[in-house]
Amino acid sequence: MNGARTLLHTLVKSGIDTCFMNPGTSEMHFVKSLDDVSEMKSVLGLFEGAVTGAADGYGRMSQKPAATLLHLGPGLANGIANLHNAKRAYTPVVNIVGDHATYHHGFDAPLESDIEGLALPVSSWFRSVKSSETLAIDAAECVAASYGPPAGVATLLLPADLSWGESTGPVEPAIKTKLNTVDDSTIEEIGNIIKGEESVAFLLGGKTLLERGLTSAAQVCQQFNVKLLAETFPARLERGASIPKVERLGYLAEFIESQLANVKHLILIDTKAPVSFFAYPNKPSYLVPEGATVHTLASNIDDSVRALDDLARYLGVENNKVETPSIGFNELIDGPLKADNLANVVGMLLPEGAVVSDESNTAGIFLNGATQGCPPHDWLCLTGGSIGQGLPLATGAALGAKNRRIISLEADGSALYTIQALWTQARESLDVTTVILDNRRYAVLKMELDRVGADAPGDIASSMLDISKPDIDFVSISKGLGVPAVRVDTVQSFHDEFKKSINTPGPSLIHAILPEGMGF
Amino acid sequence: MNGARTLLHTLVKSGIDTCFMNPGTSEMHFVKSLDDVSEMKSVLGLFEGAVTGAADGYGRMSQKPAATLLHLGPGLANGIANLHNAKRAYTPVVNIVGDHATYHHGFDAPLESDIEGLALPVSSWFRSVKSSETLAIDAAECVAASYGPPAGVATLLLPADLSWGESTGPVEPAIKTKLNTVDDSTIEEIGNIIKGEESVAFLLGGKTLLERGLTSAAQVCQQFNVKLLAETFPARLERGASIPKVERLGYLAEFIESQLANVKHLILIDTKAPVSFFAYPNKPSYLVPEGATVHTLASNIDDSVRALDDLARYLGVENNKVETPSIGFNELIDGPLKADNLANVVGMLLPEGAVVSDESNTAGIFLNGATQGCPPHDWLCLTGGSIGQGLPLATGAALGAKNRRIISLEADGSALYTIQALWTQARESLDVTTVILDNRRYAVLKMELDRVGADAPGDIASSMLDISKPDIDFVSISKGLGVPAVRVDTVQSFHDEFKKSINTPGPSLIHAILPEGMGF
Repeated sequence: MNGARTLLHTLVKSGIDTCFMNPGTSEMHFVKSLDDVSEMKSVLGLFEGAVTGAADGYGRMSQKPAATLLHLGPGLANGIANLHNAKRAYTPVVNIVGDHATYHHGFDAPLESDIEGLALPVSSWFRSVKSSETLAIDAAECVAASYGPPAGVATLLLPADLSWGESTGPVEPAIKTKLNTVDDSTIEEIGNIIKGEESVAFLLGGKTLLERGLTSAAQVCQQFNVKLLAETFPARLERGASIPKVERLGYLAEFIESQLANVKHLILIDTKAPVSFFAYPNKPSYLVPEGATVHTLASNIDDSVRALDDLARYLGVENNKVETPSIGFNELIDGPLKADNLANVVGMLLPEGAVVSDESNTAGIFLNGATQGCPPHDWLCLTGGSIGQGLPLATGAALGAKNRRIISLEADGSALYTIQALWTQARESLDVTTVILDNRRYAVLKMELDRVGADAPGDIASSMLDISKPDIDFVSISKGLGVPAVRVDTVQSFHDEFKKSINTPGPSLIHAILPEGMGF
Repeated sequence: MNGARTLLHTLVKSGIDTCFMNPGTSEMHFVKSLDDVSEMKSVLGLFEGAVTGAADGYGRMSQKPAATLLHLGPGLANGIANLHNAKRAYTPVVNIVGDHATYHHGFDAPLESDIEGLALPVSSWFRSVKSSETLAIDAAECVAASYGPPAGVATLLLPADLSWGESTGPVEPAIKTKLNTVDDSTIEEIGNIIKGEESVAFLLGGKTLLERGLTSAAQVCQQFNVKLLAETFPARLERGASIPKVERLGYLAEFIESQLANVKHLILIDTKAPVSFFAYPNKPSYLVPEGATVHTLASNIDDSVRALDDLARYLGVENNKVETPSIGFNELIDGPLKADNLANVVGMLLPEGAVVSDESNTAGIFLNGATQGCPPHDWLCLTGGSIGQGLPLATGAALGAKNRRIISLEADGSALYTIQALWTQARESLDVTTVILDNRRYAVLKMELDRVGADAPGDIASSMLDISKPDIDFVSISKGLGVPAVRVDTVQSFHDEFKKSINTPGPSLIHAILPEGMGF
């Protein structure tokens, strides 16, 4: 059995069932072996950013890694931006990069590059396969490594000659490292702070933002008047009616400062202390208020959900009933479409079990409020700030969360980085409703540009943030990539098309025309 | 004057007049300063691969660097594939990457990454600006470094606080390193080999593939029966009627082996000894025939054109008249469009002074022959093998070679990596005629897959190279990005639309439907 088949069989044994790929010549033996290993589903992307972002979406929803297959250094490079987001989401990804044959390196062929150098900044684990004998073990250990803890991008570099050469056959899964259990003394210490007199806030992240962690956290917070907060951009947040509500930290430092004002004890649970997304002249980077003490209940290598359970038990609140939002009712008022009434319609129609891939950015600021009373759903955020995540993430989420409707809320500027993902949605007939929130601007940058100095930006600077010349017709682009699409600019038409889309199998796209600039 | 303005003024003093960009928050001071430095033309791209590829095209045609402006690690990562091609083309590029404020790094904000780690694999020079005092000198030295020799990607990392902070003002250009002059003894040594009895071949690359180098080389080769060859994928080749013809090495090892058969002395001039693009089982990577001796007349740090002039003079052929192709006449025979008759039409109509960005790949194999008798033109190749070069390269070439018609011959699969470049062509009203050669396949991979093993590839493997499900409508995508487009599938309609496009100012796209697979 050649190395490629050995690799595929080993991946399957280790629980990998999906490989997102954009292969090249050095990966042809891997591709050829796909027909011999039918347990592996292979999904083609037209661009590597669509491949890696899909692996992230798949991993966030299925809670196990997908594999990727990328072509040499440039293929990896094209996928790095979304691997960066996956790294920041602590998503397990088995990132397989094909390489030249081992003996070909010295010749500096045109596609030769420092693949390891490119991979390390986004990889929590990296290994280049050195021999046919170790190939299977390397693959099994790559899968185990992707789980961490913390989970992350495990990159395996696969030289072509080891792929086509004979190997010693597949191996059993490697042993994964278990999550660490938070010890009782930490639970007690945090519990005693909570029982004290001073103002306490929880800051939740990572695995604690699914229903079970939120429930334990809410039991504690409600009983002891603790402020319940979540990190700004969760990888995955379960929310909606019947799930305890958590307030996310804002994006701007000013907002976070007001959310944390008067907090004396900030308890971190599977996340880090809040910092400003960017630095600004004369503004702090570190956003914990002066005089507040930071404590860690659980880090990302701990069983943070269990720590919350244990804390609830220590405090005797583990059977408390917690408040949850009830189903909200929004009223439809027709008129020109804007960011706020668009959000209102999404809130009216979001179906139970929906998975929202949210890269709506500035035009999406009303979505959080408008959807908190929707039926239970998942919300996936732009974890690493590298735009171009949304459409690929939605694509992978659709494969990782079968039989659920994916709602991909996407800003116009961000959509253009990885628009190729639409084609994979069409090819795989995925149930994805994409809404392009089109304000013809890199609006977040317009806001940042305004913050830069006292005088108004000039024409040239403003034009660098204006993507309306020429206007981009997303209906046309979407149809070109095989996804049916419509353009809407009123509340009623958005309502009707959104409703139609979520009730129609397969992908479709709604190009929502908003006012220029901030979209409202 | 703040750092951003200082940087822009210094770049302008050093001869930079164009900046391709896709900025983010950390680059807003640079963007704001554009209105104060009107000598710098700023060109927006919707994706960084379109930005870096454009800088490559600009540099190849203008023979001086453009600047880029990219946003942090992920923005750089999105541009790496085309920086790889620029590196392999020895194109000077002043690659400016914005960074977080120096003091913000310790906080591990979401967009934090190892930018230097990502930049080094594609950079011939790298520096992170350390202070406001050195900023201007760093910028001037970055420009000088981009020229090499050999020329390459010089990356300057610009922290946001040094951009917004006060600086000590712009500086004069830094001194560039001169090309090395090849010494007389080398000229004589090579000259004597040429005068000898044994079979000799020239392999030309780099700067020698413009008319002057080709003329000196042809004077020698014609007089002494030396085989005149060029590297497989020149960065820029001047060719056509009145310019000495050079035979390019093939892509496949088998082809190169036959081209070099019986050669006893291979003279390298501004290029490297030929190696196989990829490794294959039981096939050689190094393609110089056994028994042949490799000599270097000039390397890429030498004045290789002058070395050829000196050699022609040493051999007394510097006034010889050289044979050049004469204008050819092709006949139009209507019928279904195929790779061969498409090439024939391009050969009939290619206008004088055209600049061809060639990423036509498999479907383009007839273009070389069909266009050799065209009026003088430039031919730009995929130097680094990283697909997605063609459309951005054409975009930048249009700005680097003003008043010349750009012909962008683009394979369907490759087009989809950086399709966003079309929007910049529309925005800047660039005279670019794009032809999508659509065979609905990653056809080069189909060929490679067939070479992999004895038995036919299975359905799954084949489907990974088939991009026809769903079919991609490039007319629709192009219009969506603001570039008028038409679909053609006959020789006559292609002829008529190609003629119309090259005579119409601004960009347009022709979606040429070819037979599936190899396109003929």
